[in-house]
Formats: sequence, structure tokens, C-alpha cells
Amino acid sequence: MASRSQTHAALGRAVRDLRTGRGLSQEDLAHESGMHRTYLGGIERGERNVSYANLKRLALALGVPASQLLSRAEEHESG
Amino acid sequence: MASRSQTHAALGRAVRDLRTGRGLSQEDLAHESGMHRTYLGGIERGERNVSYANLKRLALALGVPASQLLSRAEEHESG
Repeated sequence: MASRSQTHAALGRAVRDLRTGRGLSQEDLAHESGMHRTYLGGIERGERNVSYANLKRLALALGVPASQLLSRAEEHESG
Repeated sequence: MASRSQTHAALGRAVRDLRTGRGLSQEDLAHESGMHRTYLGGIERGERNVSYANLKRLALALGVPASQLLSRAEEHESG
């Protein structure tokens, strides 16, 4: 497994990729997911150890199953 | 999305199914993942809002990618 910081950075990249792929700003996604924009920014930078509940909220707002969000993160880990 | 309690219960079932499928006791998996057995028990009962770091540790100890653990949880949510 990648180090914790790599793991979280990979998740952050997956969130950002899915968000920008849907044409959403951080503010849009924060609103959709009910998170604060600065907290979301921290997730995208890999600085936050997001909870399962928040992973599910993010995935829902991004329109993908949480498993798919994690698959994307795993691609970044190994890539 | 299922309610938070349903969501966490589904994750707990997925963890338990993968654990028992590998013939591991809660104590074995706790040891493998570096978690306390009572904390792991709480996850399996859907009582804990596990962090991303702990999801990754659990998946590693279960021998599956975290995305696959979440896929299993999603099957329990919809089933």
C-alpha cells in the first residue's frame, strides 16, 4: 500500500478529476455534498482523513458509487 | 443513498463477510490491521464511522482493494 500521505493524495486527485470532469467548481461540489469549501479543498490536497460518511456524500454529489471513487484513487496510487 | 446507519451497517457486513470468507476471527483481523478488536467489532456492527486510512488498512488486511470492499458494501445496501 502507498504511504498514508500518498493514499490520501491519490483520493484527492480522484475527487478533483471527477469534479472537474463534471464541470463543477469546488464551491459547487461543496454545496452539493454539504461540506465546507475549505474542507473539500483539504480533501483534494490529500490533507484530510475523510470519514466513510463523507466519502459517501462526496461520491453521491459526484454521481458515482463510492467504490468507483476509490477505484480512481487506486489508479493514481499505482500510476 | 441509504441512510447513514444502513450505509455503515452494509460496510460492516462486507467486512464481516470478507473476514469470515478468509477464515479469520475478529481477533485475527484486528491483529492484521493493527486495530483494537472492540473497535473492529463496532465497525462490523455498523456503529463506527471509519476513516479512509482505516478503510485502507482493513482492506489491506482482508487482501482486497478498498474499492472492492466498498463494492461489497454497495451490494448489501441495494440488496
